Amino acid sequence: MRMGPVDIITESMPPLFDLIVHADVLMDMEGGRVDLQHDVHVCVRGGKIVEITEAAKSSRTRADATRWIDGKGKLLMPGLINGHTHLTMSMFRGAAEDLAFHDWIYKVILPIEGKLLNPELVAIGSELAMFECLSSGVTTVADMYYFEDIVADVADRVGMRGIFAEHVADFVAPDDRDSLGENYRIIERMVHRYRDHPRIKVGIGAHAPYSCSDATLTKVAEWSKKHDLKILIHVAETAREVEEHVAQYGKTPVQRLFDLGFMDRRPLFAHGVHLQPGDFELIQKTGTSVVYNPESNMKLGSGAAPIVEILRHGIALGIGTDGAASNNDLDLFREMDSGAKLQKLTCKDPTSVRARDLLRMATSEGARALGLENEIGSIEVGKRADLILLSLNRPELQPIYDLPSQLVYSGTGRLVDTVICEGRVLVEAGRVLSIDWDSLKVKIQAQAQRIKTFLQG
Amino acid sequence: MRMGPVDIITESMPPLFDLIVHADVLMDMEGGRVDLQHDVHVCVRGGKIVEITEAAKSSRTRADATRWIDGKGKLLMPGLINGHTHLTMSMFRGAAEDLAFHDWIYKVILPIEGKLLNPELVAIGSELAMFECLSSGVTTVADMYYFEDIVADVADRVGMRGIFAEHVADFVAPDDRDSLGENYRIIERMVHRYRDHPRIKVGIGAHAPYSCSDATLTKVAEWSKKHDLKILIHVAETAREVEEHVAQYGKTPVQRLFDLGFMDRRPLFAHGVHLQPGDFELIQKTGTSVVYNPESNMKLGSGAAPIVEILRHGIALGIGTDGAASNNDLDLFREMDSGAKLQKLTCKDPTSVRARDLLRMATSEGARALGLENEIGSIEVGKRADLILLSLNRPELQPIYDLPSQLVYSGTGRLVDTVICEGRVLVEAGRVLSIDWDSLKVKIQAQAQRIKTFLQG
Repeated sequence: MRMGPVDIITESMPPLFDLIVHADVLMDMEGGRVDLQHDVHVCVRGGKIVEITEAAKSSRTRADATRWIDGKGKLLMPGLINGHTHLTMSMFRGAAEDLAFHDWIYKVILPIEGKLLNPELVAIGSELAMFECLSSGVTTVADMYYFEDIVADVADRVGMRGIFAEHVADFVAPDDRDSLGENYRIIERMVHRYRDHPRIKVGIGAHAPYSCSDATLTKVAEWSKKHDLKILIHVAETAREVEEHVAQYGKTPVQRLFDLGFMDRRPLFAHGVHLQPGDFELIQKTGTSVVYNPESNMKLGSGAAPIVEILRHGIALGIGTDGAASNNDLDLFREMDSGAKLQKLTCKDPTSVRARDLLRMATSEGARALGLENEIGSIEVGKRADLILLSLNRPELQPIYDLPSQLVYSGTGRLVDTVICEGRVLVEAGRVLSIDWDSLKVKIQAQAQRIKTFLQG
Repeated sequence: MRMGPVDIITESMPPLFDLIVHADVLMDMEGGRVDLQHDVHVCVRGGKIVEITEAAKSSRTRADATRWIDGKGKLLMPGLINGHTHLTMSMFRGAAEDLAFHDWIYKVILPIEGKLLNPELVAIGSELAMFECLSSGVTTVADMYYFEDIVADVADRVGMRGIFAEHVADFVAPDDRDSLGENYRIIERMVHRYRDHPRIKVGIGAHAPYSCSDATLTKVAEWSKKHDLKILIHVAETAREVEEHVAQYGKTPVQRLFDLGFMDRRPLFAHGVHLQPGDFELIQKTGTSVVYNPESNMKLGSGAAPIVEILRHGIALGIGTDGAASNNDLDLFREMDSGAKLQKLTCKDPTSVRARDLLRMATSEGARALGLENEIGSIEVGKRADLILLSLNRPELQPIYDLPSQLVYSGTGRLVDTVICEGRVLVEAGRVLSIDWDSLKVKIQAQAQRIKTFLQG
């Protein structure tokens, strides 16, 4: 059978790729290495990276992709991973300032959560947070909170990736809910809805050792096993937590979690500020991972996590902002900066932790901490196409002697020009495309009014 | 004699004011109080604030001013004061990362300064820094460095305010210069050129007690007295400095400065990280002031200044970024955030220092620390018209429960929309008007190449 002319066949075939990004500079973070390549094409199809070639050696042209993004004057790197946050809490940002941790949580946060939390507030708060995440280059979050099915739905809609962990605790939460039963119904709904979803991973959160009984922790581990869910939990955030644990149980929170078999599920520990000598080995041998939250730990006066020891043990270590009620922003560039400085300060050694360590926490090691190292955290063929383009022309970056450290010590989310998650362009020229800010802002103000009225009442 | 019609007379007369700014929200910082007024006109003439009225009670219209700025959706506050910096060092930003303090200064910074420093590098580096200052809302700097006459000339041209202090030390500095003699010639030239200048104040810098002999410190105090110059000096920045001082002199650096009569000149101490118990009283009784540099102190692992003690003694306290070679940015909003968090951390008390304390350091108390409290630091009739307008619509500020703390904990220089110094509009819609960034950038790159070549050689 005779075929038509070649150009007609070409026209009728879809392009080879959905997207090609031309990067002036590429920092792929492959194997956690921080080095730079120049003039590279990254080709995307079906949400994945399928080809990476030096532009000079590549035969790819604009015609080979449905969309071509020109990264002239820009750096391409993996989308950032916020390893611990509570997106919804952006609605409480600034509502409880300059308070001690226990006053902060018991006098303001828990009462608001007990009285005002509902699906609408959660949807609006988490969308506000995702707007800030996307516009500052975060493509993946590990989120734990209440009504997490709603948070996952918002993330699905706006195009973000994450682990969304409905949050179990023996204290509190929305007053009128049968806490554990309702939590479990939400988890089952999420598991059903998001089975095999490319971006939305269902997790399960246990609030903290101090707020969960042995029975609850055991139940969380069981559910985690039954549905194969990553567990997120706050651990050793304050000295008081550890002291009270030792007094009550005769062991550290980590030792208790280990003895309960909870750590067989390789959970993700947020904070870990007051990890004790024996804890590191238990974390290491179970393959548990840790997320560093420097700004929240500073703001609440909790302390500085023992990052040098954690790294020395080869434990997978991410970095997170925590919720915006204790930070008060979700900018992971600022968090890297603070995270490096906090270690230099507390170790009294500016060489203790380096800019490159922080870049790994926000990308390759962050992915490992979340158990997603085969999908994200670096720009490699076969991985998901979570990519960010940063403008290198901004005045606060000049001059550039060593770009990786400049990103950490001088960068902010303001550098972010383009954000791509699962191959979809979510931010372009700094503008978030998948969220309508003006209509969201009206909803934020209405919810803020409810909270103000409650706090004044 | 018969006068013409009223409207003709009006037309031929110049408007009453050079500028009227209508503020939706005003935070005037008068008396160091942090509270908000709404819907206010601030009227400017001859570089000064001459009238402040509630818009509702004001008869002022657009016709009353040559220029009218509509601050709808914006906050008007005093221009920020960066109490300690080395503007020129922006050229070295990122050239010496993750090094211990003594390696940083002796192995990288001093060799670069010794070999490469010249008026051209100083002009370009300080203009880069001023671009960043202005675009992030800083209108006044206390700067100390070499070739400070050049820095002052750049500031004069771009419209900034500051104290510009030629820097005296017994170590170092451009290899081929007769240090003290050349310093003094620069100071005399500046005194002559900037006598009675409304924005440019000539100061004098002594590098630090550890780098200046008694004779040099005495000389600096004499020159300061002769020309009425504010003295800027680094004091007690590292524990090592204090230990070595006690070993060498049998007294702390502060005690030595006091005994030399140096503190009779009410100098401005940068850092003060390792102030010792008796030091506070000497600082207090001489009317010496202190500038807090949290990010530089963290990054170099120096420690946390005893801010609570300093405030308890009623010592005038500003805040500064230090140079961009040890920070690495000049954003005073980020510095306020870090400054509050660092105290909360080291005091193990989130109530130790509050957002409002930091706002005062960056405005009213910062002005007092620089001895400029009669001119700047608050928006009051009779003061200089140094004003900034911040956009309140940015996503990272939402929702707003308490605006002052939101500025500190969520704000960055990105909020800055308009900057006015001495009544002149220097930044409009976030764009710096008085510096040509594109041509400056070419010059920055050429200087950076010189430095790179030197560092590789």
